[in-house]
Amino acid sequence: MQLNKGERAIGILDSGVGGLTVTKEVMRQLPQESIYYFGDHLRVPYGPRPKDEVRRFTEEIIEFLAQFPLKAIVVACNTATAAGLTNVRMKYDIPILGVIDPGARAAIKESRTGRIGVIGTVGTIRSGAYERALKRIHPGLKVYSLACPDFVPLVEQGLQHDLKTEEIVKRSLLPLASYQLDSLILGCTHYPMLTKPITKAMGTHVEIISSAEETAKELSTILQHQQMLSSNPNPTHHLFTTGDPIAFQSFANSWLDQQMTVEHVQLPSSKRLSMVD
Amino acid sequence: MQLNKGERAIGILDSGVGGLTVTKEVMRQLPQESIYYFGDHLRVPYGPRPKDEVRRFTEEIIEFLAQFPLKAIVVACNTATAAGLTNVRMKYDIPILGVIDPGARAAIKESRTGRIGVIGTVGTIRSGAYERALKRIHPGLKVYSLACPDFVPLVEQGLQHDLKTEEIVKRSLLPLASYQLDSLILGCTHYPMLTKPITKAMGTHVEIISSAEETAKELSTILQHQQMLSSNPNPTHHLFTTGDPIAFQSFANSWLDQQMTVEHVQLPSSKRLSMVD
Repeated sequence: MQLNKGERAIGILDSGVGGLTVTKEVMRQLPQESIYYFGDHLRVPYGPRPKDEVRRFTEEIIEFLAQFPLKAIVVACNTATAAGLTNVRMKYDIPILGVIDPGARAAIKESRTGRIGVIGTVGTIRSGAYERALKRIHPGLKVYSLACPDFVPLVEQGLQHDLKTEEIVKRSLLPLASYQLDSLILGCTHYPMLTKPITKAMGTHVEIISSAEETAKELSTILQHQQMLSSNPNPTHHLFTTGDPIAFQSFANSWLDQQMTVEHVQLPSSKRLSMVD
Repeated sequence: MQLNKGERAIGILDSGVGGLTVTKEVMRQLPQESIYYFGDHLRVPYGPRPKDEVRRFTEEIIEFLAQFPLKAIVVACNTATAAGLTNVRMKYDIPILGVIDPGARAAIKESRTGRIGVIGTVGTIRSGAYERALKRIHPGLKVYSLACPDFVPLVEQGLQHDLKTEEIVKRSLLPLASYQLDSLILGCTHYPMLTKPITKAMGTHVEIISSAEETAKELSTILQHQQMLSSNPNPTHHLFTTGDPIAFQSFANSWLDQQMTVEHVQLPSSKRLSMVD
């Protein structure tokens, strides 16, 4: 059966659970949209991996998701977005959104002093993608970037509410203290799960910008502009993981506050990996 | 000379000075974009006019703006947006943005309780356009709308900072007091010029959403998505009015905080009007 564009679903992918922050916002801001989510838990974290490898993983996941009837794909991983989406955008004729431009745009809107901080994985920060995205639109901004390699492992281990986590977050963010930032972009979709300790460490005068929340909003803008909004009162959601489906399901149920089902998937490249082992 | 898409300008139009709130935000969020602004001061306010007339005025102004090299047009007037943009969207092959969807989308993002207020002109509120836009995306919302016919004349007369204005705003918003709103959409581009008294009247627990600020941001999203952002470090701006250019210039200089030049324009239909007189 051929579905019309509005009735198709949104594909969302991430290295692990981080993209669930985007998913939760899509469910909240676009409650009539169906979602196919892919978490590549077998290979998380993406942050320390070479750019080419991250790009290859992303292309492979999108190829997997493309078997479903989709109208848009969100690469809900800053590292993957920073590694470059040009190839996949050329290959598919549906909008493929990254998470960097929406966060950059929101920071431009919120910032009054033009002093903007960005935190992300080593891969994202090393790529300079946020600085480029911000200055492409507004060359006069001052951008201060900091890699926080400890944050993704903390979240993936479910330690968001741990006392030690607060300490680690505080210590990690210390280098930003002297820059008089008025806004800070959470340049990793895992980080909104650490909003509390990050806000505590930065102080309430710094506006915390979640690329997750902003990406969901831009998805809404683009779908509406292309007349592709759904009006389905009962959307359905599917979750896939290359890792442990039980652990992922438990995390997803808790974060999304609803009962989800998760399917385990083995991607061709990880099959080859197993055979080599 | 044929300009490439990125180098073309943004057209912005309003019944009067209200669209300058959008213009200011476009200048701030997209500082490399050139702007052609049209204020129809001869016929302001649009709010009490019949829908067909407002639609005719809008089409005529867009026809005037279309003589310039534009890549997008913002109908920076809620009354004109509510009167319907389907015809003009079919006629021109560049994006034509209204101000209603961006404000609705921002309210959906900001609201945690789903109790959203909308204030606007009689035309905008009577049209039900915000309620439709909000419920199209999120059917579960509670929307409370109120027409505030006194606000546009106050702004057009330059009385934003008048003591009586605070009183009038407070009295006008009283009917919203019992609805436990958590956000209020300023559904008229003139209203951000009254943000202070509106915030004072509503209380700080209500998030005030400026359709002006949000529309500039959505313009940024759509231009980037269509690869039409400008990288001109010295954009130029042109202001046109059907009314008194001196008065408009003085208002614009003050609101935009820079020296603007204004040209007077007589539209065909107002010429006919004068001949009949």
